[in-house]
Amino acid sequence: MLKKLSINLIIIMLLVSCTNNSKKKPIIAIQTDFTRVDNYVATMYGVALDVDPELKIYDLSHNIPSFNVWEASIRLNDVYKYWPKGTVFVSVVDPGVGTERKSVVAKTKDGYYIVTPDNGTLTFIADGIGIEEVREIDETINKRPNSVGNTFHGRDVYAYTAARLASGVINFEQVGKSLGTNINRIEYTKPKFENNTFYANIPILDTQYGNILTSLPYELMIENGINIGDIINVKIYNSNALIWEGNLPLVNTFGDVKENEALALFDSEGTLSFAINMGSFANKYSIKSGPNWSIEITKNNF
Amino acid sequence: MLKKLSINLIIIMLLVSCTNNSKKKPIIAIQTDFTRVDNYVATMYGVALDVDPELKIYDLSHNIPSFNVWEASIRLNDVYKYWPKGTVFVSVVDPGVGTERKSVVAKTKDGYYIVTPDNGTLTFIADGIGIEEVREIDETINKRPNSVGNTFHGRDVYAYTAARLASGVINFEQVGKSLGTNINRIEYTKPKFENNTFYANIPILDTQYGNILTSLPYELMIENGINIGDIINVKIYNSNALIWEGNLPLVNTFGDVKENEALALFDSEGTLSFAINMGSFANKYSIKSGPNWSIEITKNNF
Amino acid sequence: MLKKLSINLIIIMLLVSCTNNSKKKPIIAIQTDFTRVDNYVATMYGVALDVDPELKIYDLSHNIPSFNVWEASIRLNDVYKYWPKGTVFVSVVDPGVGTERKSVVAKTKDGYYIVTPDNGTLTFIADGIGIEEVREIDETINKRPNSVGNTFHGRDVYAYTAARLASGVINFEQVGKSLGTNINRIEYTKPKFENNTFYANIPILDTQYGNILTSLPYELMIENGINIGDIINVKIYNSNALIWEGNLPLVNTFGDVKENEALALFDSEGTLSFAINMGSFANKYSIKSGPNWSIEITKNNF
Repeated sequence: MLKKLSINLIIIMLLVSCTNNSKKKPIIAIQTDFTRVDNYVATMYGVALDVDPELKIYDLSHNIPSFNVWEASIRLNDVYKYWPKGTVFVSVVDPGVGTERKSVVAKTKDGYYIVTPDNGTLTFIADGIGIEEVREIDETINKRPNSVGNTFHGRDVYAYTAARLASGVINFEQVGKSLGTNINRIEYTKPKFENNTFYANIPILDTQYGNILTSLPYELMIENGINIGDIINVKIYNSNALIWEGNLPLVNTFGDVKENEALALFDSEGTLSFAINMGSFANKYSIKSGPNWSIEITKNNF
Repeated sequence: MLKKLSINLIIIMLLVSCTNNSKKKPIIAIQTDFTRVDNYVATMYGVALDVDPELKIYDLSHNIPSFNVWEASIRLNDVYKYWPKGTVFVSVVDPGVGTERKSVVAKTKDGYYIVTPDNGTLTFIADGIGIEEVREIDETINKRPNSVGNTFHGRDVYAYTAARLASGVINFEQVGKSLGTNINRIEYTKPKFENNTFYANIPILDTQYGNILTSLPYELMIENGINIGDIINVKIYNSNALIWEGNLPLVNTFGDVKENEALALFDSEGTLSFAINMGSFANKYSIKSGPNWSIEITKNNF
Repeated sequence: MLKKLSINLIIIMLLVSCTNNSKKKPIIAIQTDFTRVDNYVATMYGVALDVDPELKIYDLSHNIPSFNVWEASIRLNDVYKYWPKGTVFVSVVDPGVGTERKSVVAKTKDGYYIVTPDNGTLTFIADGIGIEEVREIDETINKRPNSVGNTFHGRDVYAYTAARLASGVINFEQVGKSLGTNINRIEYTKPKFENNTFYANIPILDTQYGNILTSLPYELMIENGINIGDIINVKIYNSNALIWEGNLPLVNTFGDVKENEALALFDSEGTLSFAINMGSFANKYSIKSGPNWSIEITKNNF
């Protein structure tokens, strides 16, 4: 009887030890404007792993341009959906660190978590899949004990809270009080089709290849009579100044035109982009990105 | 009896849960020309982890020069052999994305897998340890469902297939039909010794320190009478133009000459290289790399 | 009886398989001056994972300026303490690779391990928390078999030894013979307060934002009458040349002054730093870092 009991006990211990492993814990993925040159990101990893060494932590980009909340918001919205449901994202592009801006955790309608300053970073996810609920991080509970200084919330608040949430030390309710779906947003122009013209902007560039990534979705173009094989007329503006105008073939892939020729295609996010096959459209024509860069598209034979 | 059965059942469940863990799954390691600035690599990680969150994924370099299949092939061949047997490598330097070039998985003779466009990337592994079999990725099965666009096979085909192979969702045969050992190769000159002269080329540079890495193996030099301590005469050509000529001491390590002095040594891959102790040979003498950069070596007192 | 035995045997096997998993193994974290552009770091990962594929390996920075042992020492001391106790750090900034400098593993007084060339890298940890014991790596045992070349100890000695130590193949005593606490140190000036003036230096910069990070700890300033809200007089010297002088408000965070205004604050390591809100102090005033950059601080109304 004693033996039976001890066997049962061992089995229970085994069950706990085997099922209580890292498989059940969501992944953490981090984006910042810190670069990987300094130790800021490595410090955040250390803090998270000190909460729970079994956590799986990965990098998104750490090369968001400094203080550029606009790019942080767009890039996060572009990438998050490819990750496993439940992933806890940390975004730290935080020009207002230590001031009154709130620190929050957002739960998206498709089941991901975003740990971030509430400074506009959530704009494009809120306007995309949508946010189910936002909770303000209660720093009386969810801040690293004995934190020094007031300038590195990435370490003291965001990495710490993300790790506690991912490892199950706290649940979403224990982050802090609910803010409903109330977040700070960045204002921007949404893509539209009016008077036979498509209007959109250039949220970001593809920095490595110099492709121009616009916000114009292929559905809007297809619905309104544009097809692969068409020649489209493209105007690119910086504020009100016309920077580039030209006709581009709308093709399937870069190799559909000759080397060094310009083209338009629907990129891997399903939005219109401009490129030069084996070259850099952005460098050749000095195109940049941001809310003040816009495009107008007409079909050449409308 | 019932109890005994249930204990046995629990033990079987435990066996499954304990042995079916991530230990048995091969590692994935990725190289691209995407950089880590944009989100392309992070998207590939997301796709692979969405196939199986337990996969272990690591970075090789993501700074292969854009579209440089030559460097992709050399770097992969230099690094792969240090990783555990069975590692699944993903290489995406893919100027022909979306065109007719094939997507393949190669199994090397020493038991690794390479997931890559068949555009020359496999050249140096094929000429080195050798390839046991190549299979063409059948995109009717092994492509992400609902993929948007035709320009990001790193996400839709390569990361996806590598993750499914590493996690055991598919086996090597299920990648697609066998191509035997038939691959696309890049043409290049192999190192040789003729008329008391060694001929080789400069496949890549050591970009951080500016060392010149040649393709000349130390075995070929030692067999033909060169020894540590010798002074060798070095000529470096770009196509037919002589760019640099000089005599260098063949030493064991950088510190065997004074600071800012030039030297030759057998580098960590066992091939001849040129360096300046605490300086940059490549910058000082404007040396670059590629199939059109070649060297000629003679022993000074031959 | 036989059945009982076999159940017990299975349970023991399960205990071994479940408890002998990666949870108990310390993490490895690596810093180098190799960058992530070339394959050197990826080769070190491969070597470590080939020792034990279950090891968890992470990056610190790989952008320590080439051969800059001073920065390697400061950065390691700044970051290590955030990581879980027992973490095995590898630091490879090694201008003397292949020469007579020793390769060591240091155990810190707070329970971490550092695998490094003994070239000054341990200076700031030794002067900080302190080193409990240093052991010289015995390369007759702790060097990769069949290593080629004498220029990549990061691969052949440091990654290999760190992995064997972290995975339990060797224990600390099996690294090699004890050197006590005897290490090579870099000489530098320690912060002090004399004649109503604080003296310190600028060990490193915050490269991404251009903040000036000094070695002056806030405790020393607070003890000697400086408070948040004070205006301090700052002099910055390169050797004996005065490079910048000005009065700065000592504030809590960047946003406490207007955009583009200069400020002083205690940074996230608890030392005095100078910054421009949303700008770069280092770029604007051409400030750099290193043992020859020093500061003098007085309270304006002392």
